[in-house]
Amino acid sequence: MNRSELKQHILRKNSFLCVGLDPVLEKLPPALQKEKDPIFTFNKAIIDATIEHAVAYKPNMAFYEALGAKGWESLEKTMEYLPEEVFVIADAKRGDIGNTSGLYAKAFFETLQADAITVAPYMGQDSVSPFLSFPNKWVILLALTSNEGSKDFQLIKGADDKALYEQVIRKSLAWGHADNLMYVVGATRGDEIAKVRDLAPEHFFLVPGVGAQGGSLEEVVKYGINNDIGLLVNSSRGIIYASNGPDFAKAAGRAAKSLHQDMQMLLAHYYKG
Amino acid sequence: MNRSELKQHILRKNSFLCVGLDPVLEKLPPALQKEKDPIFTFNKAIIDATIEHAVAYKPNMAFYEALGAKGWESLEKTMEYLPEEVFVIADAKRGDIGNTSGLYAKAFFETLQADAITVAPYMGQDSVSPFLSFPNKWVILLALTSNEGSKDFQLIKGADDKALYEQVIRKSLAWGHADNLMYVVGATRGDEIAKVRDLAPEHFFLVPGVGAQGGSLEEVVKYGINNDIGLLVNSSRGIIYASNGPDFAKAAGRAAKSLHQDMQMLLAHYYKG
Repeated sequence: MNRSELKQHILRKNSFLCVGLDPVLEKLPPALQKEKDPIFTFNKAIIDATIEHAVAYKPNMAFYEALGAKGWESLEKTMEYLPEEVFVIADAKRGDIGNTSGLYAKAFFETLQADAITVAPYMGQDSVSPFLSFPNKWVILLALTSNEGSKDFQLIKGADDKALYEQVIRKSLAWGHADNLMYVVGATRGDEIAKVRDLAPEHFFLVPGVGAQGGSLEEVVKYGINNDIGLLVNSSRGIIYASNGPDFAKAAGRAAKSLHQDMQMLLAHYYKG
Repeated sequence: MNRSELKQHILRKNSFLCVGLDPVLEKLPPALQKEKDPIFTFNKAIIDATIEHAVAYKPNMAFYEALGAKGWESLEKTMEYLPEEVFVIADAKRGDIGNTSGLYAKAFFETLQADAITVAPYMGQDSVSPFLSFPNKWVILLALTSNEGSKDFQLIKGADDKALYEQVIRKSLAWGHADNLMYVVGATRGDEIAKVRDLAPEHFFLVPGVGAQGGSLEEVVKYGINNDIGLLVNSSRGIIYASNGPDFAKAAGRAAKSLHQDMQMLLAHYYKG
């Protein structure tokens, strides 16, 4: 999916919601446990219940790899089930030497047919570039994450008084462009988001940390929105575990609908496209 | 495997060789292509041919994930086939928010029974710590890698004139200890290795970049050796693709033997334990 298609898709649905598909076997509703493939059955129900509210889905690879080859099968079925029109992010946080990153790119873009993959920047350009050479596929580079440990290295200031995450953005802007590169921006304070938007005015941001991880959706939109909307805001646990009962899918749908309604209001107020 | 067992294992074999199991389907000898599971058949032959020379094996996950669920099966069979006495490194370069890193830890330490996993530091302490709480299991943290892109961020100097990779080592020393934490040190110049050894005198280093990626084994040993030897030196392509003919396993054995002999000489010369 290219940038203009993504923008149209967001405008059509009036939503920039990404649903994180992070199922843990033990946390699934008891009724699903006896299914042949509980993970896929769960994902299918969550997708059906949230599809009218979401523009993107983001399975985190860890949740599938934890189950070995069987987990990969559930993942492959989930990827196949996701409709053509949604933007699919393989949350893999990969990054390895060039030829190895190339293999990961093949795994996620070709075998799994994801539109985008999250990539860690530590190993530098030759670990990121192999992901950038697939037409209409995207790298979502970790810049500023929303976890506590983001302070350990991402905020370290270099000799030029720029934090590492700023240097990651500045340098990587030259590796790709707004049509194949997005950033993970876990900033939830307005001034932080405004700063990152200044650095990368045209790029899409994937924003975690709204919902279960806290953070204000309005601040994100007010300071992060651009001409293409430029935002995908993720919620995982707040949606997929909205209920643990037989009504889990309905509850997930309601949670997604509530975020969708907030997004509609914020778009009406802040989007001047 | 704990540190003392690893040291004894190295002394017994008189080798600190790690063999990288990075099979690419298209590169395998034609005779193997018609096997039911060519990747596992290849790995099995490589392991059999090199086991007397190697103390560790390091499958890189990308090579298996590129093949989807089938690749994971080949990986699982390979992990099962590796004998108890060898040190097994899942080269995964993972790193995600805490609960997700915990799932990766489970996947690699419990499902796949690896002794160690390579981890990327960008997301900080809470992304690394979940891997450190498994008894006799190891994190091998990326510090200084051997690829071209290592210069992009790892060598950026902070306000205190320390490069990022030095800050990664300094800070992470407090997260674990020499019994559960190693570092990837792709340094191949003596002065660089000596510097890293100063920072972490007791920790094991996993050293890529000897063999196909270039680099002097003698410099690594001269400046990197410690009381426990403290080194695992990896070779992947130089061994597993030593020949593409029907003699591939024999050729791999010869390449491993040659490195083993170099290591024996270097240990005799430099190890004062």
